Amino acid sequence: MINIGVDLGGTTIKMALIDDEGKMIDKWAIVTNTIDNGKHIASEISSSILKKMQQFNLERSTVRGIGVGAPGFINMDTGFIYQAVNIGWKDYPFKDELESLIGLPVVLDNDANVAALGEMWLGAGLGAKNLICVTLGTGVGGGIICDGEILHGVSGMAGEIGHITVIPNDGAACNCGKTGCLETVSSATGIRRMALDALDYNDSVSILRDLFESKGDITAEDVFNCAAKKDPLSSTVAEKAAYYLGFALGALAVTINPEKIVIGGGVSHAGDTLIDPLTKYFKQFSLPRVFEACTIDIAKLGNDAGVIGAAWLCMQKVNQTTIS
Amino acid sequence: MINIGVDLGGTTIKMALIDDEGKMIDKWAIVTNTIDNGKHIASEISSSILKKMQQFNLERSTVRGIGVGAPGFINMDTGFIYQAVNIGWKDYPFKDELESLIGLPVVLDNDANVAALGEMWLGAGLGAKNLICVTLGTGVGGGIICDGEILHGVSGMAGEIGHITVIPNDGAACNCGKTGCLETVSSATGIRRMALDALDYNDSVSILRDLFESKGDITAEDVFNCAAKKDPLSSTVAEKAAYYLGFALGALAVTINPEKIVIGGGVSHAGDTLIDPLTKYFKQFSLPRVFEACTIDIAKLGNDAGVIGAAWLCMQKVNQTTIS
Repeated sequence: MINIGVDLGGTTIKMALIDDEGKMIDKWAIVTNTIDNGKHIASEISSSILKKMQQFNLERSTVRGIGVGAPGFINMDTGFIYQAVNIGWKDYPFKDELESLIGLPVVLDNDANVAALGEMWLGAGLGAKNLICVTLGTGVGGGIICDGEILHGVSGMAGEIGHITVIPNDGAACNCGKTGCLETVSSATGIRRMALDALDYNDSVSILRDLFESKGDITAEDVFNCAAKKDPLSSTVAEKAAYYLGFALGALAVTINPEKIVIGGGVSHAGDTLIDPLTKYFKQFSLPRVFEACTIDIAKLGNDAGVIGAAWLCMQKVNQTTIS
Repeated sequence: MINIGVDLGGTTIKMALIDDEGKMIDKWAIVTNTIDNGKHIASEISSSILKKMQQFNLERSTVRGIGVGAPGFINMDTGFIYQAVNIGWKDYPFKDELESLIGLPVVLDNDANVAALGEMWLGAGLGAKNLICVTLGTGVGGGIICDGEILHGVSGMAGEIGHITVIPNDGAACNCGKTGCLETVSSATGIRRMALDALDYNDSVSILRDLFESKGDITAEDVFNCAAKKDPLSSTVAEKAAYYLGFALGALAVTINPEKIVIGGGVSHAGDTLIDPLTKYFKQFSLPRVFEACTIDIAKLGNDAGVIGAAWLCMQKVNQTTIS
């Protein structure tokens, strides 16, 4: 059977046709049309998919359905979207809408969760049924899989690991309203902030400072690049980001006992410059039996994680749903 | 159908007959016979149950099977016990042994997990499918239920929340070999230690000090009793225990998004003297949506949690297993 995966983002909607063995038959993308609070999105997805099915001569009977990873706050059972700020939706029955337009079953989950499913199926988490996925980007996102199932929690808030407090006192302010969240120190934004603070705080010679003076700004990537070149100031900042991430993941690991931790997002491109200190601190803050059972890897699927995970969701869940 | 619940402890083995509606038909206990590295235990459980079935005229066809909560390190799938120090077992196929003796299907899980299942079924967690159970006793134990299923993790270590690091630097030594674990500050042992340190550190007037001087020692219970009477030194210690527990549970809650947190064990008898500050800190370290969806309650089943949870395990899992 063919599974259709849809990764619904604020700027583009990625889509793919993927068979039950995980073979990607085609992938494509359309622009996210946020005009009129996103009311045209469902019909644009529907026509794009129908056109693609025609192009590949796919009979309806060979298509299992559509899995969607969507941003915002979602009721996973009903596919009702309470709010998706980037898109403009509020109290929108997206699943029902798309199903009635396209006549195929639709299943929905949170975009961070769906990316985790993708890495579990075909990426760095290959085959692991107990998996923690962390995305280190502008913020810190998470998807947690236990016994092959995504954790949602009682109100769909599970996996918000960016908001684990890692600095209980005098931490930096977080977008969530708290202070000292993991996101304030281990996201790209947090790493940049810590580096700017460090540059401001002392006047040591540093290739990061040279970069800052020539470009007028720095990024988390610059920090890790300079740390890889043994720049002391950059290394201190990179170490700090890894320390707090290791602290939070240690706490999670003694709770979840995962087989894999998969690190994705822009910051993960730092590779060993991040993974080496992270592994050291993760060992310090977990238990020996937990540490030994777990490997930490960089995400492998990049931008395809979403559509692949959405296709997996479709494959696993569509038989449990019916078109309403 | 009748489910037999067995709670296997180092000193007694509690057993109960419980029907599918959760009605306890009878409960009883036998002494744990640790002679010869516990090799007589399986046959003593078997004969005790067979005698009880005779006493109640229970036909084999009306008994679904036997659920067991056991201490130590267990393979939940095979019912093989790698090690149970208190009992003397090492590499012991307990499930196979008991099944061949009694001729009924047996399912096994960790004792802390089984107690959590008991509270979920008939206790403080009544009906909650997303539940964190914490036992504050000599140590700090945990059982985590997500979507109605106990988390085991890849090597059976999930739920070891007593070993979440809450004091990253200069924390007290823990039995696990690390320092600053939750268990070092929020267990009965940890609370007593902190109170003795506080008595030693200053010479303020305190009813806890009076108690210490008259008895020659104090317990965690004394600390909470004196805190309830507004003794400043005791209140500071109780507040500290609640602070670290709130910190750890906040991190877990943004990860798991539980509907209930159930606090059991001796320290939970402190009631509101513990729950009030704990709730305050839990709110501080979780997210508003997570906090609002969750209530914190004292465990209700006391010593019966184990047999009730074991009976539930039997009811849920026996149909999935066969006698080997």
